[in-house]
Amino acid sequence: MESELKPMDSEQLREYAHKMVDFIADYYKMIESFPVLSQVKGSSLPSLSPSLEKASSSPYPPPTVRDLWWMYQPGYLKELLPDSAPCKPENLEDVFDDIRQKIIPGITHWQSPDYFAYYPSNSSTAGFLGEMLSAGFNIIGFSWIASPAATELEMIVLDWFAKMLKLPEQFLSTGQGGGVIQGTASEAVLVVLLAARDKILLKAGRKSLEKLVVYCSDQTHSAMQKACQIAGIFPENFRVLKTDSSSNYALLPEVLSEAISKDLSFGLIPFFLCATVGTTSSAAVDPLLKLGNISKVHDMWFHVDAAHAGSACICPEYRHHIDGVEEADSFCMNAHKWFLTNFDCSLLWVKDRSALIQSLSTNPEFLKNKASQENSVVDFKDWQIPLGRRFRSLKLWMVLRLYGLENLQSYIREHIKLAEQFEQLISSDSRFEIVAPRTFSLVCFRLLPPLYDQDDGYKLNYNLLDAVNRSGKIFMSHTVLSGKFVLRFAIGAPLTEERHVVAAWKVLQDEATILLRGS
Amino acid sequence: MESELKPMDSEQLREYAHKMVDFIADYYKMIESFPVLSQVKGSSLPSLSPSLEKASSSPYPPPTVRDLWWMYQPGYLKELLPDSAPCKPENLEDVFDDIRQKIIPGITHWQSPDYFAYYPSNSSTAGFLGEMLSAGFNIIGFSWIASPAATELEMIVLDWFAKMLKLPEQFLSTGQGGGVIQGTASEAVLVVLLAARDKILLKAGRKSLEKLVVYCSDQTHSAMQKACQIAGIFPENFRVLKTDSSSNYALLPEVLSEAISKDLSFGLIPFFLCATVGTTSSAAVDPLLKLGNISKVHDMWFHVDAAHAGSACICPEYRHHIDGVEEADSFCMNAHKWFLTNFDCSLLWVKDRSALIQSLSTNPEFLKNKASQENSVVDFKDWQIPLGRRFRSLKLWMVLRLYGLENLQSYIREHIKLAEQFEQLISSDSRFEIVAPRTFSLVCFRLLPPLYDQDDGYKLNYNLLDAVNRSGKIFMSHTVLSGKFVLRFAIGAPLTEERHVVAAWKVLQDEATILLRGS
Repeated sequence: MESELKPMDSEQLREYAHKMVDFIADYYKMIESFPVLSQVKGSSLPSLSPSLEKASSSPYPPPTVRDLWWMYQPGYLKELLPDSAPCKPENLEDVFDDIRQKIIPGITHWQSPDYFAYYPSNSSTAGFLGEMLSAGFNIIGFSWIASPAATELEMIVLDWFAKMLKLPEQFLSTGQGGGVIQGTASEAVLVVLLAARDKILLKAGRKSLEKLVVYCSDQTHSAMQKACQIAGIFPENFRVLKTDSSSNYALLPEVLSEAISKDLSFGLIPFFLCATVGTTSSAAVDPLLKLGNISKVHDMWFHVDAAHAGSACICPEYRHHIDGVEEADSFCMNAHKWFLTNFDCSLLWVKDRSALIQSLSTNPEFLKNKASQENSVVDFKDWQIPLGRRFRSLKLWMVLRLYGLENLQSYIREHIKLAEQFEQLISSDSRFEIVAPRTFSLVCFRLLPPLYDQDDGYKLNYNLLDAVNRSGKIFMSHTVLSGKFVLRFAIGAPLTEERHVVAAWKVLQDEATILLRGS
Repeated sequence: MESELKPMDSEQLREYAHKMVDFIADYYKMIESFPVLSQVKGSSLPSLSPSLEKASSSPYPPPTVRDLWWMYQPGYLKELLPDSAPCKPENLEDVFDDIRQKIIPGITHWQSPDYFAYYPSNSSTAGFLGEMLSAGFNIIGFSWIASPAATELEMIVLDWFAKMLKLPEQFLSTGQGGGVIQGTASEAVLVVLLAARDKILLKAGRKSLEKLVVYCSDQTHSAMQKACQIAGIFPENFRVLKTDSSSNYALLPEVLSEAISKDLSFGLIPFFLCATVGTTSSAAVDPLLKLGNISKVHDMWFHVDAAHAGSACICPEYRHHIDGVEEADSFCMNAHKWFLTNFDCSLLWVKDRSALIQSLSTNPEFLKNKASQENSVVDFKDWQIPLGRRFRSLKLWMVLRLYGLENLQSYIREHIKLAEQFEQLISSDSRFEIVAPRTFSLVCFRLLPPLYDQDDGYKLNYNLLDAVNRSGKIFMSHTVLSGKFVLRFAIGAPLTEERHVVAAWKVLQDEATILLRGS
């Protein structure tokens, strides 16, 4: 970089960005060679020796360095980078070197085909192109006027998506409702909770906050609890209703009814219910229709969180899992999970947008403009927590157009087929058991403990998970269901093929053999 | 795209992304030819004729089409796009065509050198590269374990930045505090408000919410009001303290003291103060030291919002504007405004991270891991509203490294110099007046009304703004100060040079001449 700063010279952008494209394409080409879970771990070994840092001249550290990455500890990066920003500009090549040598070893490779942890976080060529374009325009579409195309494309694409999911018409932008892109499902549930809270407080008075009760199940995502903390719901009025294996961890309508009755008898005000289609732990599906009916009787806001499994519902054969969404006041699914759209892109639809706007709008002078004041346009700033917003609809639009609905359906089906295969592999080995029925692409299982095991296999499965993750060959995560430590095998990374699933099963079997031999 | 979906094929990514690089570089090359403010407007004219849509074979619609863009109306895009997602994949070239013909005409070009509205939203080559890499890795760094490098680089870069700003040591990650990247300053003020709220409620009891009082000035960003709405602060306890031209719209310490005394006498609980360095309307600077002292006496949380002007404080000659930040509990500046880092990248530092974590943490089983449970690492999910988070530190790191502190200081100084020049141009024309003193790169001015003008020039300046924006040659925004309609000329787009400022002044003069002739 010359001494004169040209921070947005189109030819320098072109030159440098082409290099970055190759860097990223090379990363994907080599992605299988990296340990999936970053091997930065607490360890008593010293950190990487300086000589090693400069050893590699290939685009990335060769896979044989893998074992040495174990040497890193928490705080490893601080040892490798200077402790203040440079005064003079540095070369792009030096930055690339640092990314290869210092950053990549500390990355957990969510895009690896051997990544089976949490839920997937899809990247794709189309999604990536959309991110590039959004960063290129770098507009801040808080109001319609701030970039009309940003607001309008978002409305259009969310309408498209609602139609793909066969959501009720009230969720379309043509009526009183509409869709909006939030950053995450956490923000989605927060904004609707706020809308519901303020709507009821308007009737019951602000001081009734202490009486407001929120319902969900013990399988609901922690985002619900966090939203309650933020909205000031009293912790004692946050009802986490118990589920168990008898309902496959779905919330039973009668459990909800009973809790509501009890709360009403104490003079409390039930006002919000969150149901889940595809819970985080085991992909359980709450019975939307019955739960929705109950919430309607009590005039409660009914939110449906289908963050993960919503993607599957674009296939006719899985659509029935959201039957009952007609009863919902709001519905959320994350295109950034299993829908090839780079993070972040959480889709939220509401039936009554005015409730959101009532809670979240402000109207400062410096943002006033004719279009907004004439009420002829949508200003998404009033549908979300932040003011600024990126042009995120571009990436979802590009995913839909470059792949098309049929391909996207096949993509989902392929993952579910792989999960079925994995389930069969588990079932074929009597040392393992399936812990919860598989509905979509998540398999919950565990290694069966020896008879009279003192903690019913908790430690055994903990150790199994630790061993497979330490291997660097795959990355999985866990949950606890009915007190059992359960391994979660979540298929959904864009590069995952049958061979990866088979290889993962081999890793699990081998580590299990070693563990059982030792126990 | 073939019928078999390969959503993350490294060679397809390479091929397509190279095309996107050229598309974006071409956009920047031509950016001056676009009307700055999207010309999508309410109009009685019909929408663009279909024949025109396909007219252009050059990379972008030729500038001569400019006038035709006026034909678009709110909702224009819906007329141009299909009403459902395609079943079959489409070609990248078709998508590019649509972006050129249908999206770009609806974009307000925030990166145009002729953009002077709101505050700038910088893009740069380095920032863009960082966005690309972040989207390429597409990791979700909610916990340290989810990608150690993401959390660690963020801590390091925020420490670098704190040192550049000479923030007190308590804001560094080495002590009890630390920095974190939020999406926007709105989220930054919200999370610290929640931390402060919960801290005081722990002492005073949850039912004291109705007594909690928040203080700011009538120049504070609307994000403060929105945060109060979300946190459930009673509207009657949100104190918007009056400022006027006698203090150049800074909050006077005695006004704050008086308000606090009054509230205390009513049994209320003052607990939060937000001061601003560089207000949105006029870049006013609140006196941090005196305000901080008052807040300390009353054991209030003191937040400093330097979203825009914080960037200038990396220059020694402007650092004094944040003198008194030692008294602050939290400090925020937006690297995505005037610091060449693509949106979003809002930097927040706190002295006591445990207060944030206390308010915002949840600990679900499915996210538990050894590193977090041993408390040996930072999990940024507990410092923010959402769970998921992008690898945003990469772009800030790349900006700092590829440009270096000295160049970044020059960049800021150059914009301030241009603002001085613009100020002189205004002063040289007796038809105009400067309305508030210029401190950084924002000039607030207006056209003087004729004697006995019935609304003191409100309509005149409204019309002037409308006329210059309609011209498509520049885009500015406005505010109201002491009842006067004021034009804001905010310099800070990366491509803006002296010639753009001079040309903008010419547009203003010409439109003023036309208006004054007619009035």
